[in-house]
Amino acid sequence: MSGARKLSVRQALATQAGHGEPQQQVLVQGWVRSVRAQKEVLFLHINDGTSLQNLQIVADPNMESRDLSFGSSVEVKGTLVKSLHKKQSVELKAGDIRVVGPCDTLAFPFKPKERPSVDYVRQFPHFRCRTNAFSSLLRIRSEATAAIHSYFKDNDYVHIHTPIITSNDCEGAGELFQLEPTSKVNESGENPNFFNVSTFLTVSGQLHLEVMTGAFTKVFTFGPTFRAENSQSRRHLAEFYMVEAEIAFTESLQDIMQVMEDLFKVVTTNILSKCPEDVELFHKYVSPGQKDRLDQMLKNKFVIMPYTEAIEVLKKAADALTFKPEWGCDLQTEHERHLVKHCGGVPVFVVDYPFDLKPFYMRDNGESPQQTVAAVDLLVPGIGELFGGSLREDRLSVLQTRLDRLGLTDAYQWYLELRQFGSVPHGGFGMGFERYLQCILGVDNIKDVIPFPRFSHSCLL
Amino acid sequence: MSGARKLSVRQALATQAGHGEPQQQVLVQGWVRSVRAQKEVLFLHINDGTSLQNLQIVADPNMESRDLSFGSSVEVKGTLVKSLHKKQSVELKAGDIRVVGPCDTLAFPFKPKERPSVDYVRQFPHFRCRTNAFSSLLRIRSEATAAIHSYFKDNDYVHIHTPIITSNDCEGAGELFQLEPTSKVNESGENPNFFNVSTFLTVSGQLHLEVMTGAFTKVFTFGPTFRAENSQSRRHLAEFYMVEAEIAFTESLQDIMQVMEDLFKVVTTNILSKCPEDVELFHKYVSPGQKDRLDQMLKNKFVIMPYTEAIEVLKKAADALTFKPEWGCDLQTEHERHLVKHCGGVPVFVVDYPFDLKPFYMRDNGESPQQTVAAVDLLVPGIGELFGGSLREDRLSVLQTRLDRLGLTDAYQWYLELRQFGSVPHGGFGMGFERYLQCILGVDNIKDVIPFPRFSHSCLL
Repeated sequence: MSGARKLSVRQALATQAGHGEPQQQVLVQGWVRSVRAQKEVLFLHINDGTSLQNLQIVADPNMESRDLSFGSSVEVKGTLVKSLHKKQSVELKAGDIRVVGPCDTLAFPFKPKERPSVDYVRQFPHFRCRTNAFSSLLRIRSEATAAIHSYFKDNDYVHIHTPIITSNDCEGAGELFQLEPTSKVNESGENPNFFNVSTFLTVSGQLHLEVMTGAFTKVFTFGPTFRAENSQSRRHLAEFYMVEAEIAFTESLQDIMQVMEDLFKVVTTNILSKCPEDVELFHKYVSPGQKDRLDQMLKNKFVIMPYTEAIEVLKKAADALTFKPEWGCDLQTEHERHLVKHCGGVPVFVVDYPFDLKPFYMRDNGESPQQTVAAVDLLVPGIGELFGGSLREDRLSVLQTRLDRLGLTDAYQWYLELRQFGSVPHGGFGMGFERYLQCILGVDNIKDVIPFPRFSHSCLL
Repeated sequence: MSGARKLSVRQALATQAGHGEPQQQVLVQGWVRSVRAQKEVLFLHINDGTSLQNLQIVADPNMESRDLSFGSSVEVKGTLVKSLHKKQSVELKAGDIRVVGPCDTLAFPFKPKERPSVDYVRQFPHFRCRTNAFSSLLRIRSEATAAIHSYFKDNDYVHIHTPIITSNDCEGAGELFQLEPTSKVNESGENPNFFNVSTFLTVSGQLHLEVMTGAFTKVFTFGPTFRAENSQSRRHLAEFYMVEAEIAFTESLQDIMQVMEDLFKVVTTNILSKCPEDVELFHKYVSPGQKDRLDQMLKNKFVIMPYTEAIEVLKKAADALTFKPEWGCDLQTEHERHLVKHCGGVPVFVVDYPFDLKPFYMRDNGESPQQTVAAVDLLVPGIGELFGGSLREDRLSVLQTRLDRLGLTDAYQWYLELRQFGSVPHGGFGMGFERYLQCILGVDNIKDVIPFPRFSHSCLL
């Protein structure tokens, strides 16, 4: 049987065994998901992570052993045959079963046929990928990552690895993680600063993408970003992924919004077609009704609403709101929820925010007396803000005045120089990748859509 | 002319204007790379980063203006026509030229038709993407990133975002960057540790990939890794990218080496076919002869040589070496060079290193008296070590004994548990992405293959 063909579970399930294909010896490896011994026959289900569906193994009862238990790893040789069960078209008739690594079932945190709560599962960061739901999640995350790269590649964007360690604080808000090389401690002050300047973990790659858009026109980055926010909420992580794009020769927020909407719809449609079973698990069991909510987002044109109009809408509903809506104030979570509901569950772009609410780099709309900037946030059902974007201030004199006022001219000399040499109108956006996954799948807690969540008081593994 | 079709430079160059396609109004945007005014005609070259080749604009001399200079950004409307010059098949006959953003040519660090040195260019991290060589480099880097993702996707690997912030020190060697939230300083000790444990920037995603390989069989990660090494060398960065893969049910280093060689050859071949002009710039001007050296690597089967044999080879050449080769000692750079030369410029896998040279997680080969582990390094011409990999110690009792001896049992309890519940033989490797780019392109300094290099005493932007 040395000539057995090695197949993944997914490959085995996709064969047409018993439907015309000649029978052949195959070798399948994986972890046991269930053992059911009957008088005449032993049934196993094994999974190797290549698909949500298990492969059914049909074996002689004398192949049963103490080590052949839930959680153990096995290697099975045999032939693929047509299955009589309606749940699968193929099963593996075992000629030989070898336990590769046993599993101490009593000590193992998960039990067969149980569906443990997410709170319980989260306590085992080294094992939660062995549950159905989290392995589906990670396969979807992998497909989503590929789909995002494809989207930008198909649309002629250059991918840029923006730096993680930076001496800039792009947003000027939120808490930063500062770096210390451990050698400082060891060498008792001899090497007080590795980089000679204070350095932080990036909160956004935007400023570095702006450098690149001045040469490549369309650029994107997709990497980790950081906030030392002391929050235990379901919406915040200390380490999370952002998809950011920057586009030159763009004079209108409309163009930026078009890319945001297109990215959301193309990537989501791609995921739905690539891993329908994994997505179905979430839409059926984790968040019933999510399929309809997502369809609603995909089939409708996203709504566009100026901030000023959004405040009017909120004022009309002020009685039902805890925080009083007021022109010049940030939108609260309940405000975001109300606006999305007001728009019938369709994502809504809120545009043209008050000047004083937004960072220095956003383009002044030049309106008065209510001074606004060309900023946009995309609000989606269940999540709130999913994307944030803006046109950037490309006019040297306007930017210079603003940085002077903030006392930042020296720190951002290089940023001003981008406007001094072949400046172009440009803009871009960032999308929180974990929030995106929460949004399409209906996952309540952001900690459940990332392999190893980092948040205040927790950095397991 | 409002109906002009917007084209990128690459799209414009790819049209068959004058070769049968009907003439139409187009709009092209970009940065001026040269201006040449003749009596009867004005020639411009513009580039928008979508291709190394510029688009030639042919205009009426009265369209010249003071602002239309090297480095300025422009928008040109006109018709694409067949070019009479042999360097291009298409040129743009301008009906209208608009300067979008002027460029103060005297103050701009680069001048037309100069080829500045890499040391000079490196001083301008916000402008170096506007040079031919570095824009080619970044397009190649973008293609290489896509090719690596494709390789793993095509081979059924699940992509995992391994964490950047970690409480583990995977290699147990090298200097680490430690994290401090800035709030510590602000709140004078009230929040002494954001995560409750000491945290560092990752040096490798391997241990986290090992978690995942226990559920998905084949996994990979591609992200930033960090070393606080006080080195100004041409081979080291404080922040660099690693491609790492981990494969379950693997009992032989051969299988791991096969993936390493395949990845190198498939990705490189893909890049050569996707951006031939950009690669040619390096192979012709930056590193003459590099094309032949690369062909040598691609067409030959990589050599496999046990460490013990490598030491014998080096001992025979000891007179020409500064560092005396000795069994049990690490290979020096000059040793790596000699071995690659000895193998005729073909990459060489050195396997089965001394036990005491390698980290705790590598699988003991069980040989005596010269105890070795199933480790592999791939040495390539001009670079030295490009990949490092190993089989991992999957036997609970062996690993337990080793961790006990190192006093690490408590810290790695979770890692031991991976061997307690359905353990499988597995192994994997990491490839330095910047070194890979240096290797295929012949770039001498690692700082010249990453958008924003971070190294000791330098964190610009």
